Amino acid sequence: MSDLDATIADVEGRRESILETLKDFTRIPSISAGDEHAGEVKRSADWAAGQLEALDCDPVEIHATPGHPIVYGSWLKAGPMAPTILVYGHTDVQPADPLDEWHSPPFEPDVRGENFYARGAADMKAQIVALLSAVEALQRNGQLAVNLKFLMEGEEEIGSPNLAPFIRQHRDLLACDICLNLDAGLLAADLPSMIVGLRGLAYFEIRLQGAAADLHSGKFGGALDNPGLVLSELIAGMRDEHGEVTLPGFYEPVRPLTETERREMAHLPQNDDWWLGQSGARALPANRLFTATERATARPSLDVNGLLTGFTGKGAKTVLPGRAMAKISMRLVPDQSAEQVKRSLIAYLEAHCPDTVSWELVELSSADPAMIDRSSPALKAASLALEQVWGRPPVFYRDGATVPVVSMMQEILKVESLMLGFSLPDDNPHAPNEKQHLPTFFRGIETYIRFLHGYA
Amino acid sequence: MSDLDATIADVEGRRESILETLKDFTRIPSISAGDEHAGEVKRSADWAAGQLEALDCDPVEIHATPGHPIVYGSWLKAGPMAPTILVYGHTDVQPADPLDEWHSPPFEPDVRGENFYARGAADMKAQIVALLSAVEALQRNGQLAVNLKFLMEGEEEIGSPNLAPFIRQHRDLLACDICLNLDAGLLAADLPSMIVGLRGLAYFEIRLQGAAADLHSGKFGGALDNPGLVLSELIAGMRDEHGEVTLPGFYEPVRPLTETERREMAHLPQNDDWWLGQSGARALPANRLFTATERATARPSLDVNGLLTGFTGKGAKTVLPGRAMAKISMRLVPDQSAEQVKRSLIAYLEAHCPDTVSWELVELSSADPAMIDRSSPALKAASLALEQVWGRPPVFYRDGATVPVVSMMQEILKVESLMLGFSLPDDNPHAPNEKQHLPTFFRGIETYIRFLHGYA
Repeated sequence: MSDLDATIADVEGRRESILETLKDFTRIPSISAGDEHAGEVKRSADWAAGQLEALDCDPVEIHATPGHPIVYGSWLKAGPMAPTILVYGHTDVQPADPLDEWHSPPFEPDVRGENFYARGAADMKAQIVALLSAVEALQRNGQLAVNLKFLMEGEEEIGSPNLAPFIRQHRDLLACDICLNLDAGLLAADLPSMIVGLRGLAYFEIRLQGAAADLHSGKFGGALDNPGLVLSELIAGMRDEHGEVTLPGFYEPVRPLTETERREMAHLPQNDDWWLGQSGARALPANRLFTATERATARPSLDVNGLLTGFTGKGAKTVLPGRAMAKISMRLVPDQSAEQVKRSLIAYLEAHCPDTVSWELVELSSADPAMIDRSSPALKAASLALEQVWGRPPVFYRDGATVPVVSMMQEILKVESLMLGFSLPDDNPHAPNEKQHLPTFFRGIETYIRFLHGYA
Repeated sequence: MSDLDATIADVEGRRESILETLKDFTRIPSISAGDEHAGEVKRSADWAAGQLEALDCDPVEIHATPGHPIVYGSWLKAGPMAPTILVYGHTDVQPADPLDEWHSPPFEPDVRGENFYARGAADMKAQIVALLSAVEALQRNGQLAVNLKFLMEGEEEIGSPNLAPFIRQHRDLLACDICLNLDAGLLAADLPSMIVGLRGLAYFEIRLQGAAADLHSGKFGGALDNPGLVLSELIAGMRDEHGEVTLPGFYEPVRPLTETERREMAHLPQNDDWWLGQSGARALPANRLFTATERATARPSLDVNGLLTGFTGKGAKTVLPGRAMAKISMRLVPDQSAEQVKRSLIAYLEAHCPDTVSWELVELSSADPAMIDRSSPALKAASLALEQVWGRPPVFYRDGATVPVVSMMQEILKVESLMLGFSLPDDNPHAPNEKQHLPTFFRGIETYIRFLHGYA
């Protein structure tokens, strides 16, 4: 890869200028929550559009939405035979409060030691600047050989309410071979790593109704069934003594873990002590069939997210509740689908809910799980790029969370997402003193250069 | 009992005057909730004290408490060989709102048809006036042959917070053979009936703590245990497929139901349809070992009164809750005690709570169950009085609720309570258009006359 030496040297020589660009970007308080900073979110979209224009993108468009605008731009000069990458990012940031916990003002970027401090640094303006810097360096040296499309929203931190409709309305415009999602990071500064799987989500509210209204537990207790008891029994019946989910057909589509995957997971930093330390839990559950890391990332799970019935204030109100509610969510792994587990849950309720209460199931949120094919050219190119920069091959891992935009890309555009970004676990995203580790940032630029070049 | 004819005729002749007394009493808006009407509650105490003075009681005392005052009076002229009855009543009433649902103003008593409408009519100023009228008639005819002590509080509708301390401080003053609790009623106007048992109460809050704080259910779901799931499992394990409570030793002190009791209960108006109609429930639980009436009145029960964990607002918050809370109460029957079932619950939690969560048990309220001895002279006298007035023997039944003052009398003064009063189930206590059925009221006065005379 000696042909990239000049390009990489080019970046080395322009470090100060790249940092200035990142400073300009992070000075914009593009907080998407609330309406107060709508003008600043718009300004961050304008700023991103300006960067795309400077990269010779054509067209560059700012699309209005019912919320904050979406920026689209494309550079398709690599020609119809070259692959097309859709780069996803967001220009909005989390609110900065509590302000008094910041050591430097959140929107006055400050470099201290190896770190660049500003709200939105790691999440994710540094990732955007790193990718744009890589593209610019490749262009300046005549080495950009992939087509690029850019999609940058301003509402990621508020749940991307207008993104799915936009993607649905612009399927052709956004058509691509792979999505490069920059909103990602490494497990540690010296540990090149990539997420290769994300769990899906199926989130429900179960509502039980017994008596027409709350009754006196002295007058009626024992004669009538109790929706809070029935709800507890229904929930208790959803898992067995191994913590495995008992809903009928729940595991049928689950891809078994391979020995390779289990071995890889066993070598990740997340051992039992790590899970205890991160959570502050007293103990991990015993008698399980999979390790904690496997259970949290590569196996489906079922959680109670909320329970409410009867009287929950201070003291003793002798009420026999008329209704009871549970919020229950499941994290899904390939090849489960939100639709399939909903059928499982309905079948379970039909079989087990007694006729003393009526039940209603409300679907609150859903996203299918996602995995990137280990043999895909994009993953191979990214893996090689990381290895070249860090001097060791990356570890691949699955993350237990759900990234809605990855599901959207998969469901609407039918493309996989490569999660490649350079934040670190201690970068304080969503908290005071958010930062970006600068050595990792510059390694990130080189990684993007090598990836874009290698994938061509 | 022809020697009572004159006394009873005396009451007949003074019906208008007795109604005027009841009107005076119900014109006082002695609402104990809140501070607004404290002066009126005081006025109701003064009014009651005045009535006791008119009945030649000596002393008559109004005791200040941290809340509303307590009236005490005694008439002990029947002599040391005669039995002493402690009459319990309360002069306070429920709030009257919603006012616009009243057909006549709540504190302007109005007789329409056979009913006397006013807030506090049935609950329980009419019962007090009935008893005082009976005492007066017996005195006028020289037939009062029992000693009487009167205890009237002004805080029953707000949970009697100052009554137990008062009784504890005045054990000697209140010493008696039996408590006559006037705060009672009949099952129907044509059905003389008496409560012979009340359930006790043991009310707890169970608090579980898992992780140190709420966590992200995507990142941690499956690795960690879920306090909402553990709570559901613990609650589900508290009853078996027959709805019987599984806490260790829970039923040990329970007196078995006799065949006589079961037969009596089978003849009460409360059949399954009655329970369904009263509750608006879809169905009664199947597979139970006892009838609904037995389960609600003569058998202990366990209810979930409240559940709270995690996120319970609108929508989907992907939280793995750090803690979960349940309010659990048990209704107790003789010879269970709140202390004994607390030990059962602790033993259960110690045996079944997994080490992934810590648990804490908070006792919120307790009262032991109460039963009146069927062979007691007071019950026999009351039964005979009811039969003489109604022309049929009363039915005896157990009520599933807990009447704290009955427990107090039992625990502090070691006396049983005779529940004898003349409200009816459709009298709307605690609701708009509260009333007292007047024919039942006048029959009540005659019943009190015959009871006081017969018990002497």
